[in-house]
Amino acid sequence: MTDTTTTGGTATMYESFFQSQLQGLRDDGNYRVFAELERKAGAFPRARHYDGDANADITVWCSNDYLGMGQSRDVLQAMHDALDSCGAGAGGTRNISGTNHHHVLLERELADLHGKEAALLFTSGYVSNWAALGTLAAKLPNCVVLSDACNHASMIEGIRHSRAECQIFRHNDPAHLDELLSKIDPSRPKLIAFESVYSMDGDIGPIKEICDVADKYGAMTYLDEVHGVGLYGPRGGGVAEREGLMDRITVIEGTLGKAFGVMGGYIAASSALCDFVRSFASGFIFTTALPPAVAAGACASVRHLKASEIERFRHKERVAKVRMRLAAAGIPTMANDSHIIPVMVGDPKKCKMISDWLMEHHGIYVQPINYPTVPKGTERLRLTPSPVHSDDDIDLLVDALSEIWSHCALARTAVAA
Amino acid sequence: MTDTTTTGGTATMYESFFQSQLQGLRDDGNYRVFAELERKAGAFPRARHYDGDANADITVWCSNDYLGMGQSRDVLQAMHDALDSCGAGAGGTRNISGTNHHHVLLERELADLHGKEAALLFTSGYVSNWAALGTLAAKLPNCVVLSDACNHASMIEGIRHSRAECQIFRHNDPAHLDELLSKIDPSRPKLIAFESVYSMDGDIGPIKEICDVADKYGAMTYLDEVHGVGLYGPRGGGVAEREGLMDRITVIEGTLGKAFGVMGGYIAASSALCDFVRSFASGFIFTTALPPAVAAGACASVRHLKASEIERFRHKERVAKVRMRLAAAGIPTMANDSHIIPVMVGDPKKCKMISDWLMEHHGIYVQPINYPTVPKGTERLRLTPSPVHSDDDIDLLVDALSEIWSHCALARTAVAA
Ligand SMILES: Cc1ncc(COP(=O)(O)O)c(C=O)c1O
Ligand SMILES: Cc1ncc(COP(=O)(O)O)c(C=O)c1O
Repeated sequence: MTDTTTTGGTATMYESFFQSQLQGLRDDGNYRVFAELERKAGAFPRARHYDGDANADITVWCSNDYLGMGQSRDVLQAMHDALDSCGAGAGGTRNISGTNHHHVLLERELADLHGKEAALLFTSGYVSNWAALGTLAAKLPNCVVLSDACNHASMIEGIRHSRAECQIFRHNDPAHLDELLSKIDPSRPKLIAFESVYSMDGDIGPIKEICDVADKYGAMTYLDEVHGVGLYGPRGGGVAEREGLMDRITVIEGTLGKAFGVMGGYIAASSALCDFVRSFASGFIFTTALPPAVAAGACASVRHLKASEIERFRHKERVAKVRMRLAAAGIPTMANDSHIIPVMVGDPKKCKMISDWLMEHHGIYVQPINYPTVPKGTERLRLTPSPVHSDDDIDLLVDALSEIWSHCALARTAVAA
Repeated sequence: MTDTTTTGGTATMYESFFQSQLQGLRDDGNYRVFAELERKAGAFPRARHYDGDANADITVWCSNDYLGMGQSRDVLQAMHDALDSCGAGAGGTRNISGTNHHHVLLERELADLHGKEAALLFTSGYVSNWAALGTLAAKLPNCVVLSDACNHASMIEGIRHSRAECQIFRHNDPAHLDELLSKIDPSRPKLIAFESVYSMDGDIGPIKEICDVADKYGAMTYLDEVHGVGLYGPRGGGVAEREGLMDRITVIEGTLGKAFGVMGGYIAASSALCDFVRSFASGFIFTTALPPAVAAGACASVRHLKASEIERFRHKERVAKVRMRLAAAGIPTMANDSHIIPVMVGDPKKCKMISDWLMEHHGIYVQPINYPTVPKGTERLRLTPSPVHSDDDIDLLVDALSEIWSHCALARTAVAA
């Protein structure tokens, strides 16, 4: 930047820096345009799309409200009731007048969900990862963090924040993890951070194998189940519940904003660990607590999905159907064992063009996923079928994708006869 | 920590570390016990206190819902309506299906509140400071941050996260700021971060003088108005609005969780700056957006307080009355020009003891404020009178404080005859 000491000049200097950076994103096709929506409760996946003068009703195919719980009667009723009884906000940080009865009930529900002694709420899943990992890795004397190469930004920032030593193990590779751990002083505290379902590729971590390695070296395990909770396991406890491994994980982290359909994040762990994070994590302490109505809604959602299997059942069935139909049409998807269907495009501009075309011509909304959310060259459309998508919705989606694939002569996969 | 490679032993090792740290807090009187409350909408400042078998109705004297907007009809109606129309959660990050019409309306309302081109919403005030400062200071090449010595944890963490050079200027001391700036290479980008109302002492920053210094050296200004918005200025734009200085601040940061009574945080600034933070801030990008109902409630609150002066008027009157009554009783408070009344105790155990006694014997809830929220030795009760406190509430509070001050032979200030 060049020297200037006049206000106008200085302001212009900063402004042109911001503008040039934004221009760089535009040039690369990575500039993000948000779709302005109004989801229609009771009619998911339908939403109103606000687009200047061209507002239209559209179908959302990329929501992380995976089960449509955001329109659940139970959840909405609990939120209305808590609004009427407790008002809008919590009115303070958890320590200074902001702990509401609904927070306490929700923490109990979450501890029970994961079979842990305790749970601790945060304002989001992002903050829970950042604050919990940041605090544990910073405060455990001389801690080493072992972090999966594909961990979410919130985990990476938390680890970075701790300033603890961090070693990256190859994605989903327990052998590499073992190799790294074998070289670390056995007396040092060790924390292994990984995910169950990786959100953009939809692949699932080898939880058991990682726990085995952790036990071998006396490491703590920290599992992000953000894309697993509500969706997997007989009570929606996540992939670790499905595989009977919850008791082998030191800290299970989750969100209330995806399958549970509301907002907020949490960790579930031993009482001492939760109390420790509660007592020392800046990102937990110095912020207004979640609104009671949000906690009440999330609590109703967790409770509902503990008892009801029908949403998970229908979710799996819908995902399988979309996958099958796409395969039959030769649309290239990334294979995985989860509910996430990445349709691979591999170019940011093409990806955005397809997305715009789907919205404009078919009222189908799938956000293009580009850098930094995925590595450059792996740009994609990320489909998330849900129990609220009908057979007709699926037909329209696959036909539209097929049309544009032909139209643009995009590569197809071999189609089994 | 000592070496161990058996799971049980390892788990025990980590557990005892957490437990010993918690014991340290208990020994120092710094272990925090949260009061479990259920505020009663329509009857603020009354709340139900859950305390094992001894539940009781109490009066809250330490909420940051400064104006009682959390029970405003307008706010609650807007939230009920948005719940019915849009459902519980946003269903995605802002980029991936989570931008709701209500977010966009709220951002417009906030830009207008501060007379800026644009505003950008975050999940909390904490995240807005952390993400905005973290991104600006990291991305502006070779940036130096000038940070007030008493800045909030969220600003400190954001600056720390950026890894930019940071120089601390003495609290509210523009001369020291000038001195530091005079030694910095004029060509480097500079960012001055400070607050309007400091939350724990309630003192107010010399905004004009800091802007003058900023102009002299071509620095950007970043003002945290978390404890100012809604409360000061003819439209609730904060202290900078009251003093006619909003256009001299590069970035105004605020919360929707205190005077506005709901939850969320934001920055208001130029379009390019907001777009830049929107495009590069991890803490903005990689997290589920605020529930539409939360945005709608906050929007109603901002709108209401733009048009209505009565809450601010009554707030000031109540604060003055409490101050006057405490002074008459010789209860030592820290002097300041804001709405925050710190009753100084100076010892964590005594502070907690007084707080417990007020709750138990008088149904009055004032959380003891201890380290790390305030420096050791400055422990206090932080009173926040609001328009919803009646004359009777004030009488009961002052009488109770007076009683315990006599009972424990605590020092009093001289009382004017
Ligand atoms: C793996 C992972 N962890 C954490 C988060 C953050 O959760 P939240 O949206 O509740 O902040 C996300 C996505 O947002 C995620 O994909
Ligand atoms: C000065 C200051 N800035 C920021 C925050 C964070 O705001 P929020 O509670 O919305 O996270 C707080 C308090 O919580 C604060 O006191």
